[in-house]
Amino acid sequence: MTTARRRIALLFAMEAEAAPLIETLGLRQDQEFGDPRLPFLHYRGEFAESLELLLSVNGKDPRFGVDNIGTEPATLNAYLTLRGFRPELCISAGTAGGFIRCGGALGDVYVSDRPFCFHDRRIPIPGFDQYGIGSYPSASYAGMARALGLKEGGVSTGNSLDFTERCLAGMERSGASVKEMEAAAIAWVAWCLKIPFLALKSITDLVDGEHPTEDEFLRNLRTASRLLREKTVEVLRYLATSPPA
Amino acid sequence: MTTARRRIALLFAMEAEAAPLIETLGLRQDQEFGDPRLPFLHYRGEFAESLELLLSVNGKDPRFGVDNIGTEPATLNAYLTLRGFRPELCISAGTAGGFIRCGGALGDVYVSDRPFCFHDRRIPIPGFDQYGIGSYPSASYAGMARALGLKEGGVSTGNSLDFTERCLAGMERSGASVKEMEAAAIAWVAWCLKIPFLALKSITDLVDGEHPTEDEFLRNLRTASRLLREKTVEVLRYLATSPPA
Repeated sequence: MTTARRRIALLFAMEAEAAPLIETLGLRQDQEFGDPRLPFLHYRGEFAESLELLLSVNGKDPRFGVDNIGTEPATLNAYLTLRGFRPELCISAGTAGGFIRCGGALGDVYVSDRPFCFHDRRIPIPGFDQYGIGSYPSASYAGMARALGLKEGGVSTGNSLDFTERCLAGMERSGASVKEMEAAAIAWVAWCLKIPFLALKSITDLVDGEHPTEDEFLRNLRTASRLLREKTVEVLRYLATSPPA
Repeated sequence: MTTARRRIALLFAMEAEAAPLIETLGLRQDQEFGDPRLPFLHYRGEFAESLELLLSVNGKDPRFGVDNIGTEPATLNAYLTLRGFRPELCISAGTAGGFIRCGGALGDVYVSDRPFCFHDRRIPIPGFDQYGIGSYPSASYAGMARALGLKEGGVSTGNSLDFTERCLAGMERSGASVKEMEAAAIAWVAWCLKIPFLALKSITDLVDGEHPTEDEFLRNLRTASRLLREKTVEVLRYLATSPPA
């Protein structure tokens, strides 16, 4: 008897975040997927004979040689990936900032457990204010989090690596434990397309710590990406052996 | 002899900004265009027998009944519109904030004359800093601006209707005369797809004036949208009678 493989999409912004997992899983680049005019990269593979994987990375800006981080590339690549692959679950995986006040520490890997919010879309007009915050749903994987020893928390998104006092206030209001630069934008696309969505974020820096984010981020990017690989493999193993949600 | 009609795409974020122009030009909604799962609206029509038009609006958030403003919907709708319609010119039309220090006044309509920048993507790592600012090209229509009495200036984009001191500093550094919430995101898509891109922005509020943006914006939205309609019709008349760029 053969059973249909379940499709899981893994969305990364940065090459450094994705590279360890691509190597470990032996994923192969699919240059036919998507739009060749866009910088996005797509990799395909299987996991434990029961999962079919599509991993996307947002590629580089050819002018500066840096990764296309932030919400605009994330929005467009999420749409192309989800439309073309039609997964049963989409996971935004990557590195992020944590908060000491929430019990966060370097090397933690968080799974999202509440709606995804933006902390830099301030539109102080009734209705628009709520739209700006976003609040797009997260799939619920509390059992998996407990089984794998993942921390659970809210994820807040903005287009800056640093933050202002108003960003901090927004993150506190939404109950975020994790600050990053793509998830809420992907969550909007997944919500429009009715595809369950989850974030898996490895902590590189502490937003309320004493070091500038950019220094801590660069120092810990490689280690956090290796930890992310370990936990993502455990998540895939969990999904491969558990019934569909 | 028949000549091929030239295709012009007009991208709006808000229904109130687009409605006067849709009515004046007698555009018809095309419900087949795009992806029915997304909230975007598309309208088609002709102008002066020589232009074929596709006008897109970003639609509403069904939860709050407000327009999908900001860079994420703008990115995705720009991609779908430009990929599907393949225009020779894309215009981001809408309302915006102006600056008294740049000679801006309520009711001015600006045409972009320099690269489009973001003022809220701060990524203080070499290379990423420039990527965050964006600087995606504007098509050059100085002759049209002079002929039609349009002001010329730089357009800066961010996801908040209001601003912080750091937003203001970013706008000053990039030489912006106009602050709005979509153009640089659309400019990135147009740059990827190699489609000439221009912004046409009608001033509803003065960023360095004495009134809160949200009050001034709501008070002047209708008048500014009517002025935008007048100037957009003049721009289309200019394009219809001038040789392709």
